[in-house]
Amino acid sequence: MADYQAPLRDMRFVLNEVFDAPTLWSSMPKLAENVDPDTADAILEEAGKIAGGVLAPLNREADEQGSKWNDGEVTSPEGFKEAYQTIVEGGWNGLGGNPEFGGMGMPKMLVAQFEEMMQGANMSFGLAPMLTAGACLSLNAHGSQELKEKYLPNMYSGVWSGAMDLTEPHAGTDLGIIRTKAEPNGDDSYSITGTKIFITWGEHDMAENIIHLVLAKLPDAPAGPKGISLFLVPKFFVNDDGSLGERNSFSCGSIEKKMGIKASATCVMNFDGAKGWLVGEPNKGLAAMFTMMNYERLGVGIQGIGAAEASLQNAREYALDRIQSRAPTGAQQKDKAADPIIVHPDVRRMLLTMKSYVEGGRAFSTYVAQWLDISKFSDDEEQRKHAEGMVALLTPVAKAFLTDRGLDTCIMGQQVFGGHGFIREWGQEQLVRDCRITQIYEGTNGIQALDLMGRKVVASKGKLFELFAADVAKFIQENSDDATLRPYLESLSAALERLDDVTDAVLKQAEETPNAIGAASVDYLDLFGLTALAYVWARMVKAAAPKAEGDTSGFYTGKLKTARFYFDRLLPKTVSLAEGIRSGSDSMMALSDEEF
Amino acid sequence: MADYQAPLRDMRFVLNEVFDAPTLWSSMPKLAENVDPDTADAILEEAGKIAGGVLAPLNREADEQGSKWNDGEVTSPEGFKEAYQTIVEGGWNGLGGNPEFGGMGMPKMLVAQFEEMMQGANMSFGLAPMLTAGACLSLNAHGSQELKEKYLPNMYSGVWSGAMDLTEPHAGTDLGIIRTKAEPNGDDSYSITGTKIFITWGEHDMAENIIHLVLAKLPDAPAGPKGISLFLVPKFFVNDDGSLGERNSFSCGSIEKKMGIKASATCVMNFDGAKGWLVGEPNKGLAAMFTMMNYERLGVGIQGIGAAEASLQNAREYALDRIQSRAPTGAQQKDKAADPIIVHPDVRRMLLTMKSYVEGGRAFSTYVAQWLDISKFSDDEEQRKHAEGMVALLTPVAKAFLTDRGLDTCIMGQQVFGGHGFIREWGQEQLVRDCRITQIYEGTNGIQALDLMGRKVVASKGKLFELFAADVAKFIQENSDDATLRPYLESLSAALERLDDVTDAVLKQAEETPNAIGAASVDYLDLFGLTALAYVWARMVKAAAPKAEGDTSGFYTGKLKTARFYFDRLLPKTVSLAEGIRSGSDSMMALSDEEF
Repeated sequence: MADYQAPLRDMRFVLNEVFDAPTLWSSMPKLAENVDPDTADAILEEAGKIAGGVLAPLNREADEQGSKWNDGEVTSPEGFKEAYQTIVEGGWNGLGGNPEFGGMGMPKMLVAQFEEMMQGANMSFGLAPMLTAGACLSLNAHGSQELKEKYLPNMYSGVWSGAMDLTEPHAGTDLGIIRTKAEPNGDDSYSITGTKIFITWGEHDMAENIIHLVLAKLPDAPAGPKGISLFLVPKFFVNDDGSLGERNSFSCGSIEKKMGIKASATCVMNFDGAKGWLVGEPNKGLAAMFTMMNYERLGVGIQGIGAAEASLQNAREYALDRIQSRAPTGAQQKDKAADPIIVHPDVRRMLLTMKSYVEGGRAFSTYVAQWLDISKFSDDEEQRKHAEGMVALLTPVAKAFLTDRGLDTCIMGQQVFGGHGFIREWGQEQLVRDCRITQIYEGTNGIQALDLMGRKVVASKGKLFELFAADVAKFIQENSDDATLRPYLESLSAALERLDDVTDAVLKQAEETPNAIGAASVDYLDLFGLTALAYVWARMVKAAAPKAEGDTSGFYTGKLKTARFYFDRLLPKTVSLAEGIRSGSDSMMALSDEEF
Repeated sequence: MADYQAPLRDMRFVLNEVFDAPTLWSSMPKLAENVDPDTADAILEEAGKIAGGVLAPLNREADEQGSKWNDGEVTSPEGFKEAYQTIVEGGWNGLGGNPEFGGMGMPKMLVAQFEEMMQGANMSFGLAPMLTAGACLSLNAHGSQELKEKYLPNMYSGVWSGAMDLTEPHAGTDLGIIRTKAEPNGDDSYSITGTKIFITWGEHDMAENIIHLVLAKLPDAPAGPKGISLFLVPKFFVNDDGSLGERNSFSCGSIEKKMGIKASATCVMNFDGAKGWLVGEPNKGLAAMFTMMNYERLGVGIQGIGAAEASLQNAREYALDRIQSRAPTGAQQKDKAADPIIVHPDVRRMLLTMKSYVEGGRAFSTYVAQWLDISKFSDDEEQRKHAEGMVALLTPVAKAFLTDRGLDTCIMGQQVFGGHGFIREWGQEQLVRDCRITQIYEGTNGIQALDLMGRKVVASKGKLFELFAADVAKFIQENSDDATLRPYLESLSAALERLDDVTDAVLKQAEETPNAIGAASVDYLDLFGLTALAYVWARMVKAAAPKAEGDTSGFYTGKLKTARFYFDRLLPKTVSLAEGIRSGSDSMMALSDEEF
């Protein structure tokens, strides 16, 4: 198995050459005070060392060991405590955090690269900082000044970790029907009782304290999603001097046996009159949760790319090393018993598909992160509004499309290994098992597609879609004289028109029946994602083309050739997706239960 | 998790109503003496009981336990020995075997249904009878009368099991470079030395003896695939009176830790001057192996359907049971907190996609089995030749397309469960892990695609393809007046024309460069499989339509509606595949190693 190497070269290309992040950063004073190109570069470099040198080497053995539960205590796999300490010492948990409370205030465009490295090197581990950062986001956005001062500094540092407690056995997608109760204690606290499941790193031995953000219902709460409140429930109470006090009355009842991310603990949490404090307003807990959702969902999309990158690295090394059969055009390495399998067109097809999705996915997630940064840091309200629209539209695409292609890529990377890919020691099967969860949690990919199609596209009557379409159209327009780009822009233009037509078609279908939204949603998200990747691939061609001549590293010429492959082989999938969507919902809705 | 129920209703529909197997069987005297409709039906019924009652209940716990290796001995999971005994007592191992040596001589069309049940209920277990049946096929086709008499009866009964020893650490796809040696002993035996890997059930405790068929090279053998011979190497020698003698000098060095099919032992076998006997002619071992390949490869395709059927059963039950959110058109079950998730269009899309592939796959594999039966049992040489051509063409499609769609279906079934699908107790994640191997072993799906595109389509200059195209065209022609069928036949006709055009296009591309074959192969196989499934779905419509009126069970009306879904939503994928293939091999071949 190849050692994981952080893809710093490509990350720098995307940040600096494709999206010119430094110029964007310096244009926004709130960001310019936190980041400059040298700082960003040093962060990438150091993150790469931790990912490759600390986290990746633990990945396989930790999967074998798993987290262990014993009488309410969870022991993390060997090496995790020490690795977590490295994260704490570097302040990595607070990379994107609010500087007022000890965060580093870095742009998401940069944080995204750190996340990709960490998740690509060791997804089970990476979930701990990821969940903590998510909890910090909610707390920072909605918590009282008192709560923020009390909890955020130790969470940004990572001395305390965070957990998000949403799901219950009977309530996953449908959080409106949760049963966990919060009774007022008469002071500023509440007494929380109920059972939560699927709580990632809800209990463990890596941090001194674990701060749970728990969804629960107040006694007088209205039914459904508008009656849910959010509470901060610490494992250990925090005294006024900041020291830790008694243990709160909740505990981890068990951890799940699962397909992958086995080194991470997925906890059943039993709250038995645990003391908690309200975050944000009563009955507005779901809204408070959704503040961090865009970041978390992009983060999950990035997990997909991270796993896919690791799979690509392994597969590429294996394809160059493993000799088997001869090239179709005749022996390439006559001194050996066979040629390296990278000579075979079908192996190249697999590697190029992987490369197309990984590098395209990285560029796309950075593009989405750019809009998150503008929405947060810009001084211009109109610009912020526009960016918020883009974020709302593109986040479900990033989450679902990148994790769907992430799994495809991991499976393909496993396939390159033949039988060896099925064996644990090569690491490829673990990437498949780990990556699979990314399509499921943080809102299944089906739910992402409904969010895109229903809440974003149809609910805005296509207005949000037009923001994206205008951005692509502008790029096409601005580069129409560029001879190198022309063939790509023609295909991109056709794909955009197709997506536009299908969007109109679904808007019309939805006037007839609300079932049209769910019938179109998953295929529509795929179609959207493929078109969005074509856009960022065209932007990569624009950035790479001037440097391709005389490029001896192969980096820029490889980019151009991979783009060609993407447009030739993968973008055509949009044609079929469009045709399927146009057929509407009738063929899905026609069956009675017995007919299934 | 749903209890596995053998899909007998659908199997009978496919056998009797779609392909009218009884008429075919009675038309071939060699088959008519072995099978009649009542016998076939009793076999299905009994097989269903064993699959659902004996094999399925062991499946999950066996996965947890795995097979265990200790000092060369392999202990199978709890209950496997007893289950194996049930298979022995029923003579199931020899269902398709040669009656001259104790087999039952049943047609593959029927055996295929048995295989699907066994593999769907418990794939790890099912591999033991499957490998034994495969070994019997080779031995029956190529072994001397003496070897057949000595070994086949106990293998057909299952008292002894069989194993196939092909792969070596450095030689998987490329068997031409194996290193295992066979030295003549001076009598009729040979001394075999070498290491084989990935040997399924190469060692275990379920049978009294294990008969290995081992590929090795004679001292004077030419290099490459034409210098490989096949040897029968028993674990225990067999005395002339049929009793077991001493143990042969080979052993199981270890078993693999792997992603799935964990209950089955995947063995490293070390042959240390083990005594073996030649099967077939010297240096013609690969050819002897390929005799059984068509059966085994169809069998692997059927494993894909089996796992997919199990996943569909679980997902359907869960979708009817799990309540979460409300239907887009308003609450359906107002007395409950939410509606069953089967009301959601996207859940229905998943279930219908699964159903389309499972039922279409079952019909397609039975169609391929029909050609295997004709090629084996027909008295008419021309008919046999024609059937052999069909088998040669369709086998790689059955193996790869059905396992690719098998994995898709298992993943989709897991997705229906949301987070619960990732947890071991629901069984869905095991189906994904188990099914994954079917795309890899018995020739990876990439190799199947090369076989189809290169050895079958291009090497025959399209002649083999025309056999299939003519069969489809004949069906379209014969039913052109049928009003119910018309819309399906129009789509089928267009798909066939598309496949035909693409076939011509690749034949032309291949004249320019041999890389065209590998560049097109995987997408071509997909395109072929989708078209073939459209054909069998049209045949199912023809069989179901006359019975749909007044059908209160939902079986026939469900068939018609699923067909509609397939043609609306899945068949359109052919359009994109065709477009991708037409772009040729340039975009794949353009990159240097560094550019990847």
